[in-house]
Amino acid sequence: MAILLTNATVATMAGGYGLIEGGAVAVEADRILWVGRMSEIPEAYAALPSHDCGGHLLTPGLIDCHSHIVFGGNRALEFEMRLNGASYEEVARAGGGILSTVRATRAASEEVLLEQALARADLMMAAGATTIEVKSGYGLSVEDELKMLRVARQIASHRPLRVQTTHLAAHAIPPEYAGRAMDYIEQVAIPSLRAAHAEGLVDAVDAFCEGIAFLPDQVERLFTAARAMGLPVKLHAEQLSDQKGTLLAARFGALSADHIEYLGADGIAAMAAAGTVAVILPGAFYTLRETQKPPIQALRDAGIPMAVATDFNPGTAPVASLPLTMNMACTLFRMTPEETLLGATTHAARALGLTDRGTITPGQLADLCLWDATHPAQLSYTIGATPLLARMFGGQIDA
Amino acid sequence: MAILLTNATVATMAGGYGLIEGGAVAVEADRILWVGRMSEIPEAYAALPSHDCGGHLLTPGLIDCHSHIVFGGNRALEFEMRLNGASYEEVARAGGGILSTVRATRAASEEVLLEQALARADLMMAAGATTIEVKSGYGLSVEDELKMLRVARQIASHRPLRVQTTHLAAHAIPPEYAGRAMDYIEQVAIPSLRAAHAEGLVDAVDAFCEGIAFLPDQVERLFTAARAMGLPVKLHAEQLSDQKGTLLAARFGALSADHIEYLGADGIAAMAAAGTVAVILPGAFYTLRETQKPPIQALRDAGIPMAVATDFNPGTAPVASLPLTMNMACTLFRMTPEETLLGATTHAARALGLTDRGTITPGQLADLCLWDATHPAQLSYTIGATPLLARMFGGQIDA
Ligand SMILES: [Zn+2]
Ligand SMILES: [Zn+2]
Repeated sequence: MAILLTNATVATMAGGYGLIEGGAVAVEADRILWVGRMSEIPEAYAALPSHDCGGHLLTPGLIDCHSHIVFGGNRALEFEMRLNGASYEEVARAGGGILSTVRATRAASEEVLLEQALARADLMMAAGATTIEVKSGYGLSVEDELKMLRVARQIASHRPLRVQTTHLAAHAIPPEYAGRAMDYIEQVAIPSLRAAHAEGLVDAVDAFCEGIAFLPDQVERLFTAARAMGLPVKLHAEQLSDQKGTLLAARFGALSADHIEYLGADGIAAMAAAGTVAVILPGAFYTLRETQKPPIQALRDAGIPMAVATDFNPGTAPVASLPLTMNMACTLFRMTPEETLLGATTHAARALGLTDRGTITPGQLADLCLWDATHPAQLSYTIGATPLLARMFGGQIDA
Repeated sequence: MAILLTNATVATMAGGYGLIEGGAVAVEADRILWVGRMSEIPEAYAALPSHDCGGHLLTPGLIDCHSHIVFGGNRALEFEMRLNGASYEEVARAGGGILSTVRATRAASEEVLLEQALARADLMMAAGATTIEVKSGYGLSVEDELKMLRVARQIASHRPLRVQTTHLAAHAIPPEYAGRAMDYIEQVAIPSLRAAHAEGLVDAVDAFCEGIAFLPDQVERLFTAARAMGLPVKLHAEQLSDQKGTLLAARFGALSADHIEYLGADGIAAMAAAGTVAVILPGAFYTLRETQKPPIQALRDAGIPMAVATDFNPGTAPVASLPLTMNMACTLFRMTPEETLLGATTHAARALGLTDRGTITPGQLADLCLWDATHPAQLSYTIGATPLLARMFGGQIDA
């Protein structure tokens, strides 16, 4: 099956917008064959069945390279308590915080977790995502981390969506390991990683490196185990303070360092040398009302590719939409619309170690979005309000 | 035609959430007949055809009491230019700013303006709106203001949506009246108001009171004309500085004072005495990266009802979603989820001078939203991500 998409404003995202007005894209099976101007369609494709894009904007399918959409419950009542003036202690006493999500996730069956994750995936797809990354990290026991990763792996068999799974047992320290972070790494994080990897459930290994979570030497133990299994790593780093997690991540050739609000010059140099992608997460910054912004200009100056992701999670970023997140990256961090679209396409692919998607160029997967827009800047300009008109996934046009 | 909605978590919004778990609502024609617990359904309604709400959250249809959705073009390229470092002057020289929207609006036909406004109304409806207010203010000539109001009036005949129209010729000073604001009021604003009122196109009269727009004595001239026509007034007031516009608005018994970031104690006292609603518009605050927040606690203390609205407009708030705006009001201004839902229902109705909607109580219009949620705090907690499952408009369930 081959098809020719015609009359599109194509943002190829090869090195920049790569805008082609009056563009066409030839697709065969699940791959892009050709892209160019309508006036230059090769003879071989001119007679293909065609689909008129009505002049609308065609982009690569969006890639969300950082999410936590497998979890039980929600944290709406905690959100409300805080706004009604409850202190952090009162919220914790009422059972709030990340451990409330851990309890709800442990208590939920795989079936229930999957149903809830699919509802969240639907929201992400409705906003243009065709590939998403999904982390574990609310199980915090060997069995519950495995359960989360099994659920994450199942998402793609229920939806036209590609899923990369990330092991994040080193997300928080459960009560039973309070004060014993290294024991948790050795008795839960590494064993759950080994078991999950044996089931083929792990595409990458992540940790939360922060004073309130895991310190660099604890993360290093985990990353050493990951390296022995041949698994790539990434890191939640320098979100609330400069723990030098990025230096550690770079030493392990990390795919990405994520959040990085407090990243310093040493971390930037290390990322540049290691080819580590900077994953910018404005949703959590917004929700937490942080004031320290990631060093966008220094990242630019160092030539570090920046991805943009939702961080969809129940505590700090209950946001499903990449275009809304792109608007936040522009408004809050002064990224440009072109940078944010690169960040949700080709740079996000790179943050996941993927080279087969993220641009509209020959040989890439035919995952595409058609938007009610005529210029790619509109995706960032509207506050999550650019409608997705149609979606192609693996060469198939969705309803 | 009568129907019984059963098995709903009802937020009646009568004075607060007014939450009824296991609730039911009886509807006849376009009105609510009865609301209460399923265990207490009156015999007269027990045999009505029923619709099971699956335990989901039922709220009044949302009311967006401040929007500018009739306009030509968009301002995405200006947004991009600014993020690429262009100065205000460079943007203006490239044809940006509000006057670019005025040019595009003047150049557009009624048909084109209507088509674009309907696309925006669709986004608002998809996020739960059943009543919206729509302002003129990008025509800035008698004919073009009339054109905008005619378009605004037509929206409701094309969609299941109620529309209140507001005359806002006093939105900006067009180039041909530069330095002659009072002439503009007398030669354009008042004549266009008179002509529009004669056509039945005006539900209220608004102005932008600010150093860069119209000063209080100019607004007073317009409001005096409005009063002579028996039309209620409202005001864009104290957004960027304290011009004491709210004092003027209160003297005219204004329905609402909108934005009010710089509102002082005198304005608060005047609003309280006049019964003027405070309309909170976090979308523009967010986009403009303002730092002066509206005096939420002082408004609370004074017992002034607060509405929350999108301000949907091309320059400072390209946002269509009331729930996303409610999240911003919580996150940026520390309003509570209950306040924001009151703000998008009964207080928004009051800001429009309407008493027939905004709560789920007997006699009110049967405009309702069913959400994929079980508690109303979820609407504000998610960052625009709570799906609308179904919508009832005038007693009819939408697809
Ligand atoms: Zn995260
Ligand atoms: Zn406005």
